[in-house]
Parts: sequence; C-alpha cells; structure tokens
Amino acid sequence: MAGYVSEAVIKRLPGYYRHLKALEAEGVTQISSRTLGERMNLKASQIRQDINCVGGFGRQGYGYAVSELRARICTVLGLDAPHSMIIVGVGNIGSAVASYQSFRKEGFEVVALFDIDPAKIGALVDGLQIQSADDIAPYLDAHSVDIAVIALPANHAQRMAELLVSHGVRALWNFAPVDLATNGNVPIVNVHLSESLQTLSYKLAHRGESDDA
Amino acid sequence: MAGYVSEAVIKRLPGYYRHLKALEAEGVTQISSRTLGERMNLKASQIRQDINCVGGFGRQGYGYAVSELRARICTVLGLDAPHSMIIVGVGNIGSAVASYQSFRKEGFEVVALFDIDPAKIGALVDGLQIQSADDIAPYLDAHSVDIAVIALPANHAQRMAELLVSHGVRALWNFAPVDLATNGNVPIVNVHLSESLQTLSYKLAHRGESDDA
Repeated sequence: MAGYVSEAVIKRLPGYYRHLKALEAEGVTQISSRTLGERMNLKASQIRQDINCVGGFGRQGYGYAVSELRARICTVLGLDAPHSMIIVGVGNIGSAVASYQSFRKEGFEVVALFDIDPAKIGALVDGLQIQSADDIAPYLDAHSVDIAVIALPANHAQRMAELLVSHGVRALWNFAPVDLATNGNVPIVNVHLSESLQTLSYKLAHRGESDDA
Repeated sequence: MAGYVSEAVIKRLPGYYRHLKALEAEGVTQISSRTLGERMNLKASQIRQDINCVGGFGRQGYGYAVSELRARICTVLGLDAPHSMIIVGVGNIGSAVASYQSFRKEGFEVVALFDIDPAKIGALVDGLQIQSADDIAPYLDAHSVDIAVIALPANHAQRMAELLVSHGVRALWNFAPVDLATNGNVPIVNVHLSESLQTLSYKLAHRGESDDA
C-alpha cells in the first residue's frame, strides 16, 4: 500500500466499501471511475486518486473489478479480522449500540457491557448481562478487548478513557460530548451527536444563502 | 456575518459553542485565541480565522469576551429559536434519539414518533406515543416540523425522505446507511455509525504507521 493516507481519504473509505458491497450484491462486476463517481457523488479523478492511494488499481477503458476492489478496501479498513468491543455506559446510546445488528455482521462483537448504576447491573441487553463498572479493570486484565465504546456523561469520560487504555483497550469509540485525550498510540473516533444536530441547525438557518460568495 | 462559511468551519462551530459554554460555566470571561486554541487543539491563527468568518471579533492583547462570543455562535448555529423534530423509525437508534435529554436542553423538541411495526404503535417512549407511519403525511399537513430523524433500514430511507420533504419537513437528520438525495433546498446531515466504526477500525489497523510520509 502507498504510504500516507489523509484523514479525508480515510473518512471516504467506508463509503467506497458500502457502495462496492451494494454493487456486488447487484451483480455488477466492473465499474468505471466515472460511473462509481456518479453513484457516490464524487469526481472520477477523485475516485481514481483515492483508490490509488490505498493500493487499488483499475484498467484503462475497463475500470475496476468490483469484488477485488471491495476485498482490497475491506482489508485496508482492517475488517478482515473480527473486533471485540465492550460498552461502557448502558444508557440510551450505549444500549442502542449494544443492540445494533449491523455491527455484528461486520465483525464487531460486543462481548461485555458495564454501567455504574446498581439498578441496571444484572439486566440483560441483547443477551448480555450488564456488569458493574467496578469490574471493568479485572475484566480487561483477563480478556483482550479491541474497542471500548464510551457512552458516558462528559464529566466521567476522560477518567474512564484513561482506565480503559491503562488496562489494554486498543481503541476508543467515544459518544461523550467531550474531546478525549489519550497519550500514546490509542486511536479515538468521536460521534458527537449534539454537534451533528447543531450542524444541521446551521444549515437550516442558512439555507438558500449563496455558497459561491 | 461574512459571506461564505466553508463546510470545515461549519463542522467546527459546534465545538466552539461547546467549549465556550464550558468556559462560561467555569466563570472565564475573557480568552485569547492562543488559550482557546490549546483547549480545542487548534492553532491560534485557525481560531482567529474561524471566528472572524462568523462575524465574531476579539481585541488585541485582550482576546474574546466569552459570553458575547458564545451568544454570537449560538445565533449563527440557529440555536436561538427552538426546533421541532419527529422521529421516523423507533428501533434502537430512533428510541435512543427520542430519549436523549441533551437535545431538548438545546431546544430540539421531539414532537412525534412514527413506526411501521404494528407491535410498536401505541407504545410510549419518553412520554410520547408511537404513531403509525401511515399517519406521517396527515401529521405533517397539520403541523410544522423542522427536522425529521430518519432511523430506518437503508431500503426504506430514500422513499421516506421524499415523503417527508414533500409534506414540508425542512431538514433531515439521517441515520440510515445510505446517501439520501433531496432535490431542492432541504439540508441533510448524515450520521453513519457503521462508517464511523470502520474509520476506527482503519486507525486501529494502521496505528503506529508514520503519518508524515
């Protein structure tokens, strides 16, 4: 694979993966950068550049082999191997993530749920019993966990992130409305729902304004 | 306000808003672009440019007045006025959004819930009764709705988006794993959870790789 992949390309890769899976399901075997671009609302030149960037290649006048490119992007995304995932904070968002079937289909398996609320401990969510947050450290010391989903209030998230990382969690998917810091080599991706909704509010407030000023 | 605001700036505005609210709560009245930048992990020059872009201004050697700037960004984000919101699809994600208290605090009020599943219709979520999806069009004809949350399987989302828009919904917040198209002037913001998780998988697979190649 080519060296540096920019954040912008990384963010587009799952979209490629989704469209290529759909094309495969539709029985399409070959696709040109132009047709793929029309489908994804990207320029053909952008498509060629992105795909080149992750080591995929097409043939002049022929395009990309859909299955091969889908497999390539699957590998680049690290989706060939399964991922174990724990959920910390089983409120509305935490339990939605725990029950979201698509993640399992894609190899992300929720292996444990934790909450601080004694009223929740022992309850079942999608077949898994909620455990006490006090048991997180011993659990992590005994099990290898790839990803922790942080679905806690903002004021608890940073301390929890540090605990998780110090006990070996390899990546954090953060739903708390806070910018988490980890020192070292633990990637974090944030899902800031309130901020997403505020972005929509912005666009609603400013719709109809020229965007070529 | 200055004219064109880029997509990148729009996406950063909610972060400014969040940090300025926190600063206000901490009793901070003035802040320099450098200190705000350290807090937000942005360069001071970026901060000044962003804030200038939305018509905020600081004073040389003094910085920004926190409350004033918070109020300015609140207005720019369109958060001065409340927004009405309906939820279409009351599965895991739809009910999590319906119950998420922060949205209400920020003026986004869920006014109706709809689902296609007869087993769900009539059930209460956070005090609201789930209505039949057949009642969406008459509901919209009788009520003004700012935002519809689409929390449906991918194969139903596009048709539903068209129905919602044709009955006057002004903006779409889409959780379905599909790129929705609306013709015309209806903004859409997507929350693609699977893609966010795949981005994390990418970063986990490639951690430790040089990113200055």
